[in-house]
Amino acid sequence: MSTTDTPVHVPAVAAPNQPEVTPALEELYRGFEQELLVPLWTQIGDLMPERPNSHAAPHLWRWQNLRRLAEQAGEIVPVGRGGERRAIALANPGLGGRPFATPTLWAAIQYLMPGEDAPEHRHTQHAFRFVVEGSGVWTVVGGTGDTPAGDAVPMRRGDFLPQAGWNWHAHHNATTEPMAWIDGLDIPFQYLVESQFFQFGREQISEAERITPERSRSERLWGHPGLRPLSVGDVGPGSPLLAYKWEHTDAALSDQLLLERQGYGGTVEPGHAAVRFTNPHNGSDVLPTLRAEFHRIARGAQTAPVRETGSSVYQVFDGSGTVRVGDASWSVTRGDLFVVPSWEPFSATSEAGRTDSDSGALDLFRFSDAPVFEALRLDRQEITR
Amino acid sequence: MSTTDTPVHVPAVAAPNQPEVTPALEELYRGFEQELLVPLWTQIGDLMPERPNSHAAPHLWRWQNLRRLAEQAGEIVPVGRGGERRAIALANPGLGGRPFATPTLWAAIQYLMPGEDAPEHRHTQHAFRFVVEGSGVWTVVGGTGDTPAGDAVPMRRGDFLPQAGWNWHAHHNATTEPMAWIDGLDIPFQYLVESQFFQFGREQISEAERITPERSRSERLWGHPGLRPLSVGDVGPGSPLLAYKWEHTDAALSDQLLLERQGYGGTVEPGHAAVRFTNPHNGSDVLPTLRAEFHRIARGAQTAPVRETGSSVYQVFDGSGTVRVGDASWSVTRGDLFVVPSWEPFSATSEAGRTDSDSGALDLFRFSDAPVFEALRLDRQEITR
Amino acid sequence: MSTTDTPVHVPAVAAPNQPEVTPALEELYRGFEQELLVPLWTQIGDLMPERPNSHAAPHLWRWQNLRRLAEQAGEIVPVGRGGERRAIALANPGLGGRPFATPTLWAAIQYLMPGEDAPEHRHTQHAFRFVVEGSGVWTVVGGTGDTPAGDAVPMRRGDFLPQAGWNWHAHHNATTEPMAWIDGLDIPFQYLVESQFFQFGREQISEAERITPERSRSERLWGHPGLRPLSVGDVGPGSPLLAYKWEHTDAALSDQLLLERQGYGGTVEPGHAAVRFTNPHNGSDVLPTLRAEFHRIARGAQTAPVRETGSSVYQVFDGSGTVRVGDASWSVTRGDLFVVPSWEPFSATSEAGRTDSDSGALDLFRFSDAPVFEALRLDRQEITR
Amino acid sequence: MSTTDTPVHVPAVAAPNQPEVTPALEELYRGFEQELLVPLWTQIGDLMPERPNSHAAPHLWRWQNLRRLAEQAGEIVPVGRGGERRAIALANPGLGGRPFATPTLWAAIQYLMPGEDAPEHRHTQHAFRFVVEGSGVWTVVGGTGDTPAGDAVPMRRGDFLPQAGWNWHAHHNATTEPMAWIDGLDIPFQYLVESQFFQFGREQISEAERITPERSRSERLWGHPGLRPLSVGDVGPGSPLLAYKWEHTDAALSDQLLLERQGYGGTVEPGHAAVRFTNPHNGSDVLPTLRAEFHRIARGAQTAPVRETGSSVYQVFDGSGTVRVGDASWSVTRGDLFVVPSWEPFSATSEAGRTDSDSGALDLFRFSDAPVFEALRLDRQEITR
Repeated sequence: MSTTDTPVHVPAVAAPNQPEVTPALEELYRGFEQELLVPLWTQIGDLMPERPNSHAAPHLWRWQNLRRLAEQAGEIVPVGRGGERRAIALANPGLGGRPFATPTLWAAIQYLMPGEDAPEHRHTQHAFRFVVEGSGVWTVVGGTGDTPAGDAVPMRRGDFLPQAGWNWHAHHNATTEPMAWIDGLDIPFQYLVESQFFQFGREQISEAERITPERSRSERLWGHPGLRPLSVGDVGPGSPLLAYKWEHTDAALSDQLLLERQGYGGTVEPGHAAVRFTNPHNGSDVLPTLRAEFHRIARGAQTAPVRETGSSVYQVFDGSGTVRVGDASWSVTRGDLFVVPSWEPFSATSEAGRTDSDSGALDLFRFSDAPVFEALRLDRQEITR
Repeated sequence: MSTTDTPVHVPAVAAPNQPEVTPALEELYRGFEQELLVPLWTQIGDLMPERPNSHAAPHLWRWQNLRRLAEQAGEIVPVGRGGERRAIALANPGLGGRPFATPTLWAAIQYLMPGEDAPEHRHTQHAFRFVVEGSGVWTVVGGTGDTPAGDAVPMRRGDFLPQAGWNWHAHHNATTEPMAWIDGLDIPFQYLVESQFFQFGREQISEAERITPERSRSERLWGHPGLRPLSVGDVGPGSPLLAYKWEHTDAALSDQLLLERQGYGGTVEPGHAAVRFTNPHNGSDVLPTLRAEFHRIARGAQTAPVRETGSSVYQVFDGSGTVRVGDASWSVTRGDLFVVPSWEPFSATSEAGRTDSDSGALDLFRFSDAPVFEALRLDRQEITR
Repeated sequence: MSTTDTPVHVPAVAAPNQPEVTPALEELYRGFEQELLVPLWTQIGDLMPERPNSHAAPHLWRWQNLRRLAEQAGEIVPVGRGGERRAIALANPGLGGRPFATPTLWAAIQYLMPGEDAPEHRHTQHAFRFVVEGSGVWTVVGGTGDTPAGDAVPMRRGDFLPQAGWNWHAHHNATTEPMAWIDGLDIPFQYLVESQFFQFGREQISEAERITPERSRSERLWGHPGLRPLSVGDVGPGSPLLAYKWEHTDAALSDQLLLERQGYGGTVEPGHAAVRFTNPHNGSDVLPTLRAEFHRIARGAQTAPVRETGSSVYQVFDGSGTVRVGDASWSVTRGDLFVVPSWEPFSATSEAGRTDSDSGALDLFRFSDAPVFEALRLDRQEITR
Repeated sequence: MSTTDTPVHVPAVAAPNQPEVTPALEELYRGFEQELLVPLWTQIGDLMPERPNSHAAPHLWRWQNLRRLAEQAGEIVPVGRGGERRAIALANPGLGGRPFATPTLWAAIQYLMPGEDAPEHRHTQHAFRFVVEGSGVWTVVGGTGDTPAGDAVPMRRGDFLPQAGWNWHAHHNATTEPMAWIDGLDIPFQYLVESQFFQFGREQISEAERITPERSRSERLWGHPGLRPLSVGDVGPGSPLLAYKWEHTDAALSDQLLLERQGYGGTVEPGHAAVRFTNPHNGSDVLPTLRAEFHRIARGAQTAPVRETGSSVYQVFDGSGTVRVGDASWSVTRGDLFVVPSWEPFSATSEAGRTDSDSGALDLFRFSDAPVFEALRLDRQEITR
């Protein structure tokens, strides 16, 4: 047992219809306190609200600020064993200063200087990387164990790289430029349910693992649409495909909008194309606890306001527009990150005035804890319009 | 957003290998604070420990104390709309005064006076009742909606009554004696992931629902071993069998010990019989987030120390013995409740000296969050001997 | 390759719109024949009918005739290695003299004289036994291998005993009376898809296996409603519960009719109670290829005519009444067996005039190939009224 | 009931240890015959063999012969309503002249003249098309119903086009050349289990459906690796991806052989690359009853002899080599088709002497009934070397 938490908890929402305070009641309550007991009737409003009343706040982080601070960290904070990663996490203002973007999700900017390595380790937390700008870093996955060498996975703008828990991994920046990207993990969820394991790996990756590949081995085995390699038997809990390349995501979204224009549907709603990154082995979410999606909102289109149980983090990948989360509303542009707490309505509008691109679409990367809710039958969704 | 939590979070476990504190670093950290960012490298020891390091403490609550305080509450705290239930919850000493037995589990003693009704409501939290002593209360499930009347489920010593989320339910004490039982729910888990919905139901249950049945309708449809009623099509997320009667549980455990004595195995380990309460529709756990089991440790037997990810609450149903949880050890007897935090080793020994029963076995009821861990592929188990 | 079938196949249903017979066409057809080719256009009416047009006929076998012939066989045909079982199978008049009750199902009366053993063997064919009269035989399952001795499963009137493929089994008649029962298997299905394996077992079962148990070990482990033994890990393709006792089946059916009379539904349709025998491990059908059900039609009730893809065999367990299968209609009584071919409408009426029983219900045991159809998404059902 | 089959069935394999023929036995057998009964003991050798003893024979059909006869049929047999398709099926010499390649599989060459249409229909039989040469035909799927127009799917050499049962479909040859391809269906299986439904569709497809698309709509929605369109909710029993293009199959196989050469495995065995066509929605086989795979055997490589329950049909797509099926052995070249009956060992060797291609690999398309066996837990496999 650690001693993190404050000793006394005062519920945020008082319960109605409390019994009259009498000496007998006060004595009863002292008895409860002495025996480490708490009555339901004083807590029910906080614990069992009519609908989710998230502790997390809708909040926006500007990419330019994240990027600037990450660059400063790159100058003065080394990367190495112990600290493990130069990752700087979003700390939701409603969550007590903890580095939790939402009650279940971790989102951080990671930054690697030219030639730097982030050391090998593994952990039960499920993770992914998403690249909003730059290229040149690759991630080596699975380098310890039976395989002669880890699988080097290059990272470029728009790429999505999932990595299921308990796989060894390291990072290497082979270029002469620093690189930043986004890490998403289920660190808060696993912190809450207390399922975490962690191990250090090798101090150095091998020379063979430093050679820049064009495609990872995982893509060569699993990256062909609808084709399963017969040489692979059992597959672990996450996707065996370690990189979802931007060219495919982009084409899939364009195809949906084109189908819509041709009168064949294909979009979620008018002007709103969307794909989910899925495990090619079984079609499930890429990770047991994390869902990842890409949404393209065509120029001038607006999504219907939707609220769902569970929380999401979005990053603007391209374009600009306006997003509404609960009562908040922000103009957003490339790289900006924001969170949608549980049951807060969300909608997005693509900015009509854009002219610097053919499409003018607002491209949003999203990740969420939806697989947790679906596996446990806790998912609900509602269009609030 | 509510404002429950303290604004600044200091991790319990400091991370090693921190960068040297310089004016530049201090300025960087001020920048992080201003932008609501937290670096991984100061938090990693707390967030990503080598193994689960539970915030919860092993702890024991004596039944006689619970029972005494519940009786006092019965005298002075009314049951009614708003407070909803006269339920008094275990508050783990490691969890900041919250009414959480473990980070994910709620356990409470509920108490109902002769003739009292606990009003109808429903909630997404999955729940069950387990009866360690007494009888005479029944629970009316599903009374609002299409069905002409709810299904009255009698409760007697040893009975286990699961109830999946979002089913209407009320309680009624038809006898001239008060009755106490244990409520188990996933309130903490749903509080953490923020999936809760709640609705008030009717103010009064109907007269028809006040008639004491011998068996509930659910038992008449689903309580025959291996036989599924063809009249029932789709079944919701939890077990359609609303009562697991003690006579069946007792017989199943006796049968296992007898098989063992006859040389045919049947037990988990020598002298240790155990059953899991399962959904007869599909064999899964009775509730999407909660597992319930019954363990019988024969006179003089001892269970191997096991540690698992996820947490459990145990109640001694019969017999007496010694239980060890992590570094703690307690002599326990009927009704005592204790918690096993994530990854703390647990073992139990039946007390050899008992003579007031043929068997002298230690009977333990257990519930846990194991279905959450299994659904999300986070389950691990280790025998520590 | 064996050479069973006739060399030339003439489809039963001629295809319409055939091309004009010319010398060129005749030469083409000779070319086809020479190259072992057959055109679709001459066969399509037979191969791809508008709806299933079963080769099997509705047919009834009278129990008294089966019983009489089985008794004769008991006198003159020994049971032993090679022939393996004194089993006499229903041969549907539409299926070319083969011992196939339907294209996929085998149904036979098996007969064992006092003191006789049917030798141990195993096969991939899934099997069950159902007892319409008598008792005194038991089946020893799993006697070879790791287990010290097989599990002796007693058989009594009304009991249903499933046995998944590739389990060793033998039979023993411990009484001074002969006994008859029904064997159901998927022999025709496995014959058609060619998946059969078979092995001889021990020549004699052990003395320990000859002791009459009250209940089998499987029932002691798996026969308690909703309770799973924790000592059992992986379970094979069929039900681990080897006997479904009549007392439970009877009670479940009575409970449904009682619920209906009390206004709570519970039956499939008015006066029609029904249960499916299911695998307590996962709620699925008891065997991968065979479904088994029990139907009770209350005195004077009539079931709606239903047709389904797939075929069934019924045995009258008790009562009497009238059954309609396609265009056929029969008065039936205890022990009578009949088949319902694919897509032939079936309904049953309980005989109102009965007085020799309180209930006067018509009790029907049914088995079918429905799991095959459901697993392969070929199931369809239609009420034809 | 139809009257296809011969009235008396003589088993191919006699059972041993028959009872001595006496007048009593003869009378008993006459009794059996009269009551439509057949004893197990005379049939067991045929019905329950030690291992599958397929009625089907290993057999080879030469593509040049098929092609020649199809061309002749193109000249003299019109395509139209009633006959439906100019399809000529392989009739296994062991299966009594029926157009069954194996007991469960249908394989036919289909031939369409320039400008011809094959009329729209639908059936429960699951189907696919595979193109060994030519291009210019497309298949219109789903043209009746809610969708304004069917989805036109172009067909080119190497393409694989699955189509789950009960989808409307037609074919159109838009070019000035005839085109031939292979149809694979589960016609024999559904004939045996009697699950077939069939309906005629429109007499003519629309003009919009005659426009040659570059890619089908299904490919634009589902053909991007690991990306699921969020606009599609429920998906039926088969793959929503209606074309698996050769470029992807070819690249996947090349990638595996390259990984092997680089020391990273990736192949099934040395020199043997293989992929399975899978449903991108859930990773399952493309059709509930049919599996489809592509195998590439590198120049000079040989596959280990494997036998499996269930049967397969192979077509040589490219290269040449030697294949062994049971006791048969054939030199094969482009387009040749052969069958592997249940439990017959199969191996293939690529011909070393080839020089007309860089790779010299033997490319084999394969389809089988494996999903049936796996769904019903009847699958077994053995390497016979």
